[in-house]
Amino acid sequence: MTNSKEKTNSDISDEIESANEEAVNRVNKGKAVLVDFAPAKKVIPGMKDDLILHAGPPIEYKDMIPAMKVAVQGVLILENRAKNLEEADKLASSGEIEFRPNHEFSSAAPMGGVTSASMYVAVVENESFDNKAYCNLHEGRGKILRFGGYSDEIIERLRWMNDILGPSLSKAVKRKPIDLKVITSKALAMGDEFHQRFIASSLLFLKEILDPLLDTEAGAEGVDFIAEREQFFLNLAMPAAKALIDPADGIDYSTVVTRLTRNGVGYGIGVSGLKGEWFVGPAEIPKGLYFPGYSEEDAEHDFGDSAITETIGLGGYASAAAPAVTRFVGGTVKDANQMTMDGYKVSVSESRDFLIPNLNFRGTPLGIDIIKVNQTGLVPKSNTGIGGKVPGVGQVGAGISRAPIEAFRDALRAYAKKYGI
Amino acid sequence: MTNSKEKTNSDISDEIESANEEAVNRVNKGKAVLVDFAPAKKVIPGMKDDLILHAGPPIEYKDMIPAMKVAVQGVLILENRAKNLEEADKLASSGEIEFRPNHEFSSAAPMGGVTSASMYVAVVENESFDNKAYCNLHEGRGKILRFGGYSDEIIERLRWMNDILGPSLSKAVKRKPIDLKVITSKALAMGDEFHQRFIASSLLFLKEILDPLLDTEAGAEGVDFIAEREQFFLNLAMPAAKALIDPADGIDYSTVVTRLTRNGVGYGIGVSGLKGEWFVGPAEIPKGLYFPGYSEEDAEHDFGDSAITETIGLGGYASAAAPAVTRFVGGTVKDANQMTMDGYKVSVSESRDFLIPNLNFRGTPLGIDIIKVNQTGLVPKSNTGIGGKVPGVGQVGAGISRAPIEAFRDALRAYAKKYGI
Repeated sequence: MTNSKEKTNSDISDEIESANEEAVNRVNKGKAVLVDFAPAKKVIPGMKDDLILHAGPPIEYKDMIPAMKVAVQGVLILENRAKNLEEADKLASSGEIEFRPNHEFSSAAPMGGVTSASMYVAVVENESFDNKAYCNLHEGRGKILRFGGYSDEIIERLRWMNDILGPSLSKAVKRKPIDLKVITSKALAMGDEFHQRFIASSLLFLKEILDPLLDTEAGAEGVDFIAEREQFFLNLAMPAAKALIDPADGIDYSTVVTRLTRNGVGYGIGVSGLKGEWFVGPAEIPKGLYFPGYSEEDAEHDFGDSAITETIGLGGYASAAAPAVTRFVGGTVKDANQMTMDGYKVSVSESRDFLIPNLNFRGTPLGIDIIKVNQTGLVPKSNTGIGGKVPGVGQVGAGISRAPIEAFRDALRAYAKKYGI
Repeated sequence: MTNSKEKTNSDISDEIESANEEAVNRVNKGKAVLVDFAPAKKVIPGMKDDLILHAGPPIEYKDMIPAMKVAVQGVLILENRAKNLEEADKLASSGEIEFRPNHEFSSAAPMGGVTSASMYVAVVENESFDNKAYCNLHEGRGKILRFGGYSDEIIERLRWMNDILGPSLSKAVKRKPIDLKVITSKALAMGDEFHQRFIASSLLFLKEILDPLLDTEAGAEGVDFIAEREQFFLNLAMPAAKALIDPADGIDYSTVVTRLTRNGVGYGIGVSGLKGEWFVGPAEIPKGLYFPGYSEEDAEHDFGDSAITETIGLGGYASAAAPAVTRFVGGTVKDANQMTMDGYKVSVSESRDFLIPNLNFRGTPLGIDIIKVNQTGLVPKSNTGIGGKVPGVGQVGAGISRAPIEAFRDALRAYAKKYGI
C-alpha cells in the first residue's frame, strides 16, 4: 500500500462520513404531517389511469406472485375497467396497463401495495423539505385486497373507502393536520415497533381524528372503522417513513440505504449515493408463527413496501421497544433486543426522535450503511405479516424476514465503480 | 428451642402459606367487569345523604388536609347542602355529616377521593366472587375537586358529569359491559403501570366505549371528554383493583396486605388475616419531579386510595413494564425495574394475568406479605401524583411515595397477638 493510496482512501472515507451525516441529519430534521387524503391520480405526480403501482422493486405483470396479480385484477374491477377476474387478467396482460413500483412515485404501501388511479391515498407532507409521500388506505386484516383477497365484499368495502371514508378523512385532516412523527414517538413508549405492531399508534391516531371525523359523512361509521383496525396506522407510518427518507436520497458518496422493499419475488434496496438504482436479491419466506391451520407450505415469499420503516430506524430496529411483538412473530424478548443491537452495528447514527425507554431512552439505529452491512453480514430484519400463497387466503401468519445479502453486495460493487474505490 | 416449639412454628408457617396461597389465588381467579355507572347512594351499600366518603384511613373533618377539606366543601355545594365554602365548612364541622373511608364501603378513589350521595360512580363486578366495587368519575387533571380545587367551573363540570355523562356511561356499559382485567393486561404491554401512567388503558377503554357512548345523550361530547383525559382509566383501575382484592380479605392466618391508602396525614394498611383493622403510619411527601414553578415546599403529603393498585401487583410493582413512567416521576429505567424486583422479594406469588414483556412475560409481584416487608424493610412504593398544599392549586408534580414501615410493624405485632406467635 502506497502513501498516496492511503490518502485517497482516507479522503473518500471523509466524504462518506460527511455524506452519511447529512443523510441522517435530514431524516432527523424531517417532519411528517398528515395533511390530506385524495384520489391517487389527483395528488401523486405522474399517476394516471393506465398506471398501476405495486410494492417492491420493478416487476412485470406476468412475473408477479398470485396474491399481487389478483390485487391488480381487483383494482381493475374497482376502476370499472373489467367486470371479472378473467377480463381483468386479460387487460393486465395486454400491455395497455403500465406497472411501476410505489417507491418510484413517492409512495409506499403494505403487502401487494397495489394502487390505482381512483384509490384514495394518505398525503403526508415533510414540511422541512417540502416533499410529499403517499399510501393507500388501510383495509384491515383477513380477506383483503392487499393480501390478494378478492370478493364482492372486498370491492364493496374499497368503494365505500373511496366514496365515503376517503373524502371524510380528507375533510377531517384538513381541519386538523396530524403530526405523525409525534404519534410515532409516543407509541414507541407504548410497545409499537411500526412494522408489525401498531396498536398504540392506531389508538393515538383515533384519538386525534375522532372529533373532526365525527363531523363528516363517514361519522361514527368511519370512527368505528378505524377503531376496529389495530394496524390502521401501518398505512400512515409508511408514507411518513417515505416522506422522511426521501430527502436523504441522492446525496453523493452517501452509503445510507434509502429503499428496502419486496414484491414476493425480489427484495430490492436503494442507496442514497446511487439514486434511482435498484439492487435486488431473492425475497425469502419469513420465519415465524402461523395462524391455526397454516404452515410454511401455505406461505408466500416476503412482499410489501413496509420495510421502508426500517430505513428510518423503526420496525425491526425498534424491536427492543416492543417486546410484546414476539408474541406475534415468535422468538424471545432477547431476540427482539438483539435486532435493535444488531441495528446499531450497521447504522450511521441514532434517531433523535424515536427513543427506546427500555434502553434508557436511547435513539433507535438510524441510517443503514451498506458498507457496515457487508462487513458484518448483519442484514436488516423485519417483523412482518406472512401472506398466503393462494390468493384470497389473506394473512397466514407473522414472522421475521431478512433482506438478501446479495443486494448489499451488488450495491457496494456499483458504489465502488461509481466512486472509484 | 424445644422440639414442641419448632413444631408449633412449623404448623403456623404451613397455615400462613396455605392462607396466603388462597389469598393470591382469589386475586388471580377474580374478574373485574365494568357493568354500570350510577349515583353512589343507589348502588353503594350503606351510602346515604349525610355520609361523605374519603380517601385513606379514617380521619375526622377537622384533621383533614386543606385539599381534602375543600373537596368536602365542594361536594356539599354540589349536593345543594351549602351555598358557599364557608357555609359548607360550617356544615361539615357541625357533626351532622359522617365521614368514612372509601375502603370501608367497597370503594377506592384517587387523591381526596371525596364522594357524596348523588355523585355518579363506576360499578365494577367481580363475577367470580359476586362482589362489587365503586369509584367516582375521573374529572381530568389540573384544577379539579380531587386535588382540592374549587370553582364554579369545577362544580359545573361535576354537575354535567352527574346529569349527562354518568347516565350516558350507564347506558353504554349496560349495552356493552367491559372487562377491565383484559384492558389492564393489554395496556401493561403498552407502557402503563396503573398508578401514574394510564395512557394506553384510557385509549383502549375509549375504543371499547366509543360505539355505545356515541348513541347516548353525552354523544360526541362524552367521547371527547374521555379522549382528552390521559388518566381516565385511573378511576376504573381502582375499583377493578378493589373488586379483585376484596375477596382476598378476611382469610384467617393470611399475612397478605389488602389495603394500602393515604389521606395526606396517615398512610393506612390492612391485612387479610386481620380484617377490618387499620394500621397507620405517617404519610410522606413523595420524592419526584415538580411542574414548572413548583417545588417540594408546595407539596402536600401523600393522599389518595390509588395504592390499592399495588395490592394486586400493579402500580409500583409493575414499573418494569412502564419505563417511560420515569419521565413523569423521576429516576432511571433501572430504578423502575428495581421497584418490580423489590416487589418479588416481599410478595407471596406472581400475577397470572398481569405480565411484564420486558421480563420475558413474568407475572407482576402479587400478594404483599407483611412478614417479608418487616424482614426486608422493602416497603411498597408507588408512582403517584403530588398534590398542592394550598387547595385549588391542583397537582404540582409526580413522584414516588413509600408506605411507612411503622404500619407494617404494628400490623405484625397485632398479627402475632391474634395468632399467638
